[in-house]
Amino acid sequence: MARIAVVAGDGIGPEVIGQARKVLDAVLPGVEATEYDLGAARYHRTGEVLPDSVIEELRGHDAILLGAVGDPTVPPGVLERGLLLKLRFVFDQYVNLRPSRLFPGVVSPLAGVKPGEIDMIVVREGTEGLYAGAGGGLHRGTPAEIATEESLNTRHGVERVIRDAFARAERRPRRKVTLVHKTNVLTHAGSLWSRTFDAVAAGHPDVTTEYQHVDAAAMFLVTQPQRYDVVVTDNLFGDILTDIAAAVTGGIGMAASGCINPERAHPSMFEPVHGSAPDIAGKGLADPAAAVLSVSLLLDHLGHADAAHRVAEAVAAELAGRTSGAPLRTAGVGDRLAAAAIG
Amino acid sequence: MARIAVVAGDGIGPEVIGQARKVLDAVLPGVEATEYDLGAARYHRTGEVLPDSVIEELRGHDAILLGAVGDPTVPPGVLERGLLLKLRFVFDQYVNLRPSRLFPGVVSPLAGVKPGEIDMIVVREGTEGLYAGAGGGLHRGTPAEIATEESLNTRHGVERVIRDAFARAERRPRRKVTLVHKTNVLTHAGSLWSRTFDAVAAGHPDVTTEYQHVDAAAMFLVTQPQRYDVVVTDNLFGDILTDIAAAVTGGIGMAASGCINPERAHPSMFEPVHGSAPDIAGKGLADPAAAVLSVSLLLDHLGHADAAHRVAEAVAAELAGRTSGAPLRTAGVGDRLAAAAIG
Ligand SMILES: CC(C)[C@H](C(=O)O)[C@@H](O)C(=O)O
Ligand SMILES: CC(C)[C@H](C(=O)O)[C@@H](O)C(=O)O
Repeated sequence: MARIAVVAGDGIGPEVIGQARKVLDAVLPGVEATEYDLGAARYHRTGEVLPDSVIEELRGHDAILLGAVGDPTVPPGVLERGLLLKLRFVFDQYVNLRPSRLFPGVVSPLAGVKPGEIDMIVVREGTEGLYAGAGGGLHRGTPAEIATEESLNTRHGVERVIRDAFARAERRPRRKVTLVHKTNVLTHAGSLWSRTFDAVAAGHPDVTTEYQHVDAAAMFLVTQPQRYDVVVTDNLFGDILTDIAAAVTGGIGMAASGCINPERAHPSMFEPVHGSAPDIAGKGLADPAAAVLSVSLLLDHLGHADAAHRVAEAVAAELAGRTSGAPLRTAGVGDRLAAAAIG
Repeated sequence: MARIAVVAGDGIGPEVIGQARKVLDAVLPGVEATEYDLGAARYHRTGEVLPDSVIEELRGHDAILLGAVGDPTVPPGVLERGLLLKLRFVFDQYVNLRPSRLFPGVVSPLAGVKPGEIDMIVVREGTEGLYAGAGGGLHRGTPAEIATEESLNTRHGVERVIRDAFARAERRPRRKVTLVHKTNVLTHAGSLWSRTFDAVAAGHPDVTTEYQHVDAAAMFLVTQPQRYDVVVTDNLFGDILTDIAAAVTGGIGMAASGCINPERAHPSMFEPVHGSAPDIAGKGLADPAAAVLSVSLLLDHLGHADAAHRVAEAVAAELAGRTSGAPLRTAGVGDRLAAAAIG
């Protein structure tokens, strides 16, 4: 039986996770869920962000389901580096998976783009690049101050995430992979990424490939988002591109993500892309759609492809049935999704 | 009399620059223009990208007007690092200025966004960050390969570009500056940028300020581009954000840019953001609007604010008068713009 660690977190986290668990319990009866208290609230209460003992406990789970952590009162970087990024690195979650699909019933800010036309996934590298934490500084606070940030890229790290992207493309109808980088400026890392991409592509003659500079890709995500199927890119470029992809498909309120260790050597983590939204917390108004879509990714990762599909389709049906302007009740949405996902 | 170095370049470069010079000559009679042959064509013919002797000659000019350089046949990085970036660094063009305005007559890909609603400038740092060329690699072509790219940031470099952004904001009606970075992950460079921003802001109590992470800014450029007035950011973030800003205001075909040394200690360079578009080159079909808008930035930089304004308004009127579907003739557009700009 699947053992899931649940980190509800701050703000609307507990509300949306409540619904996500309803859906999970409905489609996978008998899931063993253990709650972990992490995030801004715990930090303020105890000063702790992620004790080593908790890391060891999390390690015993098949996956982690996270709501949202953070609060404006916590200094920038504390929970990001100390909790979210720490888990990605410790658990070697090298595939940061972000699907973007324009569901029927969801209005894109782009004129003339119709539901179904955007259906892409970004496979963002999750354990290297500028997120490695390799930076420093000198002469702080003086006119001579300098600060550096270093992007670290290994053949090992680049190759495994590109392989994952091609494997996912093989399972999709269009079978296309777009590499995004900035090879004309970042020539060292760019060369490693392109050569590795070409080498992996050679083993997938049935997959169409293309390359785009990150600035061009950012533009095309606005002008021609339909052209993308699978995008593979580095950690920072992926951070930026996935927010654009979310924006053109209805906003980060609708976006799910998985920080995945594909070999399941360590637990993977699944979370909505939206934050803790303290302004609407506790009011029962938060939309659990992204949290429930994250459950779909979790199910797929654990090998329950059918259940994953049913959950995603339940969300699609829910969104298609919404009448604009009608008030949304978090728990009501969760009940409908759970019922629909059982089938 | 102003001495302008003209680099028409490759593809449609010579065509659009022909029109840009018509307009320049019309509003600033007696300009002394000298042509320099640089770009893909010269590289293929002679192997040269930017000889030192040419750099010294360019140094004697008040500004450089560039059309477009590049061609798919030149390996990535050769002209970018060897010519475009070289000039930015040698001539200390630390303000990379990119205005984005949704002109009447231009259709935004964003639903419901009306002309006049988007009117922003991005002040992108031009001489530091990940563009410094500080990267390397080891064990190339083996499983042990690593590649690095380093972002170098100095208080000197960060402060001067932030000062420039505030000075520009002071001359605009909304007086708002948004700092974009990724302080929650790039904590070293992020801290330098935020502390410097706060220090400069303290001297401009009449300017409204805000901070956004780069991923959020990329999203808001799609969902709420109206909110931006002046954006200041680092070299790579600016590269990406300006392409999004261009996309939502009609595309890079419409976008102008200036690589500026505000003190005029070295020549600044002005160029359309679009590339050499070899597919339509030589057919008289290229739109010179972005090249002519770059002339407007050039005029402003050289202290001819009135002429700069007239040129920009001539372009605005031209775009407003276009009937969609009507064929565009490069030279005809140039003639109309030159006539309109004389006033
Ligand atoms: C919170 C932050 C560290 C994180 C990132 O930059 O990866 C977030 O933006 C995301 O995309 O998951
Ligand atoms: C051509 C390239 C080096 C350049 C950059 O990255 O700055 C371009 O994208 C730009 O924005 O001017």
